[in-house]
Amino acid sequence: MLKRYLLAPGPTPVPPEALMAMAMPIIHHRSPDFIPVLEAAKKGLQWLYQTTTDVLILCATGTGGMVGAVNNFFSAGDNVLVINGGKFGERWTEIGNAYHLAVQEISVEWGYTVNPHDIEKALKSDPSIKGVLVQASETSTGVYHDIEAIAAVVKKFENTILVVDAISGLVAHDLKMDAWGIDVLIGGSQKGLMLPPGLAFVGISDKAWAHADKATSPKFYFNLKKERESLKKNQTNFTSAVTLIIGLNECLKILQKEGLENAFKRHKILAHATREAIKALGLKLFSQESPSNSVTAICTPDGIDGQEIYKNLRGRYGITAAGGQGKARGNIFRIAHLGYAGPFDVITAIAGVEMVLKTMGYELTLGTGVAVAQELLMV
Amino acid sequence: MLKRYLLAPGPTPVPPEALMAMAMPIIHHRSPDFIPVLEAAKKGLQWLYQTTTDVLILCATGTGGMVGAVNNFFSAGDNVLVINGGKFGERWTEIGNAYHLAVQEISVEWGYTVNPHDIEKALKSDPSIKGVLVQASETSTGVYHDIEAIAAVVKKFENTILVVDAISGLVAHDLKMDAWGIDVLIGGSQKGLMLPPGLAFVGISDKAWAHADKATSPKFYFNLKKERESLKKNQTNFTSAVTLIIGLNECLKILQKEGLENAFKRHKILAHATREAIKALGLKLFSQESPSNSVTAICTPDGIDGQEIYKNLRGRYGITAAGGQGKARGNIFRIAHLGYAGPFDVITAIAGVEMVLKTMGYELTLGTGVAVAQELLMV
Repeated sequence: MLKRYLLAPGPTPVPPEALMAMAMPIIHHRSPDFIPVLEAAKKGLQWLYQTTTDVLILCATGTGGMVGAVNNFFSAGDNVLVINGGKFGERWTEIGNAYHLAVQEISVEWGYTVNPHDIEKALKSDPSIKGVLVQASETSTGVYHDIEAIAAVVKKFENTILVVDAISGLVAHDLKMDAWGIDVLIGGSQKGLMLPPGLAFVGISDKAWAHADKATSPKFYFNLKKERESLKKNQTNFTSAVTLIIGLNECLKILQKEGLENAFKRHKILAHATREAIKALGLKLFSQESPSNSVTAICTPDGIDGQEIYKNLRGRYGITAAGGQGKARGNIFRIAHLGYAGPFDVITAIAGVEMVLKTMGYELTLGTGVAVAQELLMV
Repeated sequence: MLKRYLLAPGPTPVPPEALMAMAMPIIHHRSPDFIPVLEAAKKGLQWLYQTTTDVLILCATGTGGMVGAVNNFFSAGDNVLVINGGKFGERWTEIGNAYHLAVQEISVEWGYTVNPHDIEKALKSDPSIKGVLVQASETSTGVYHDIEAIAAVVKKFENTILVVDAISGLVAHDLKMDAWGIDVLIGGSQKGLMLPPGLAFVGISDKAWAHADKATSPKFYFNLKKERESLKKNQTNFTSAVTLIIGLNECLKILQKEGLENAFKRHKILAHATREAIKALGLKLFSQESPSNSVTAICTPDGIDGQEIYKNLRGRYGITAAGGQGKARGNIFRIAHLGYAGPFDVITAIAGVEMVLKTMGYELTLGTGVAVAQELLMV
């Protein structure tokens, strides 16, 4: 009998309250029953996004939100600047290419964060750049790009909007959409929001809507203007993912009860405890600067395959963490502390990592990392 | 946001498969749909009880099963011998008194186990004793009475049946009903069987049924002969607790997949790891001999109130363990490793105990107990 623990950077565990609500009989998305459901979701998302603008709800994975951000605000041939420091930075470029944008990249070494000055330099040297596309938390490397500083830069350029993939960053990091001036802020359901996969969220500033008026990229499913019109009537353009939106309201209630600042603080503490525990085991963090509060990427010790650590955690102990993606595959493994996560998730993860590494021949004293985590997680 | 962990000696956590099955629409207990459900439960319980006799299913807590064992096999004035080494030993006496039996006690100091020779001596000196009433695992003290040895003694006395309260012992300890000669074996749903409270199980030997023929204690709800007749038709005497019995089948499936020997072994390992971790922290076990595989009772360090440890575990860390009962209240706290339990439940419990004790001023090095548990739980 193997009890299962989900400690991956998405999907993340779903709280019982949301599971219960989603198990209730389904209601119809065009019936009056659904109006208050979508209205509550809309308001809750505005609270989470720290914005007064509408946050659209799409029936799609986070990537659907990224595609929507490309095909609604840009046209073929438009210059955009992608910050590429990991697998999800690469995805911006791939989507941009698919829609025939003229993608320029600031290539950031994996494990590092972009320097906002480099963005400013690029925008100054090419005023035709219509958008900067970046991740908040780059899930593949465990790095957080400084969105506040980047927003302060992009704000200076009237013709340029800032598009932030906060799919794994939302809830774990403070992202003040209105106060900082983020133009497009993309979230997903299966990360900090503690839901199953299936919803993407897109917050859109007035500056971004002005771009949308001129954008000619083909669009049908991700037609954000039509979504905005529907949202005004507390509906979605196509069939609403009724069950997930009902679950969303439960998760938003949990977060509102906790408070936004407390949620950020909780993620910060869990991430800090994870990193310090890992370092106490003599392991190195993959993030060389500005580590993410959502997920910790850990360098595999010499002579050990990171994918084997991941497989052993799952096979021996029922812990689903994550291996490495893309070019980091085999060199890292990753532990999430995201969403419905508390101190004993970190302790379980660190205890499991210790036990697996010891089995795999890495020299360590059991409990070393756990003790460091305990110290930092005591309340 | 406080994630909750249920590490009490009942109710214990319910596996997702059982929760799901119990969330399905209810069926009628007198409909043909229910026949195969009760038939499967009957067979599964026989497998668990290691018996070919029927195991009755009562809609009651475990105490209901204890009452049924008293009012079906004994009459007012009958001599019975109660092994009283804890709060649940006391309960045998209380039930016996309520039904006007002539209760004799072997009083066992809390934390100790009964010496089977003392039982033999008592039975020899008073051949009129019709029953020996004992616990397998005494939940209040964390002690396991040696049922195999006790059964070997009672078997020698033709007029005497052995009645075992295995409510918290079942699944955690090997209890061979037929091979050892246990006459009445009582279980409950909310312990090793991983279900919500609400079902009691009573396995009954031919020797016990012969007692039932002569017993005149008043009975209506717990009329085990009528239950046996109903069970032959795959029914229960009164309304079946349909949902719980459907859940029971799911939990039995989980245990059958694991295998009975593996389930016993798992509980033994979890209990051993818990005890060794606790001792490594300089704490003393309350059980002075034959510790239970279901629950570990731990002596509170000098100057600390056991109830406060229990309250801090719950209030600070969301861990519901248990305090002390009856005269042990305040002097002990208890951690269960029972039912749907695995290595990281033990690690969570020990980590939590360390953090709470440190906060309460007990001197310890964080991670000391966890490391010992990790060593013993590595696979």
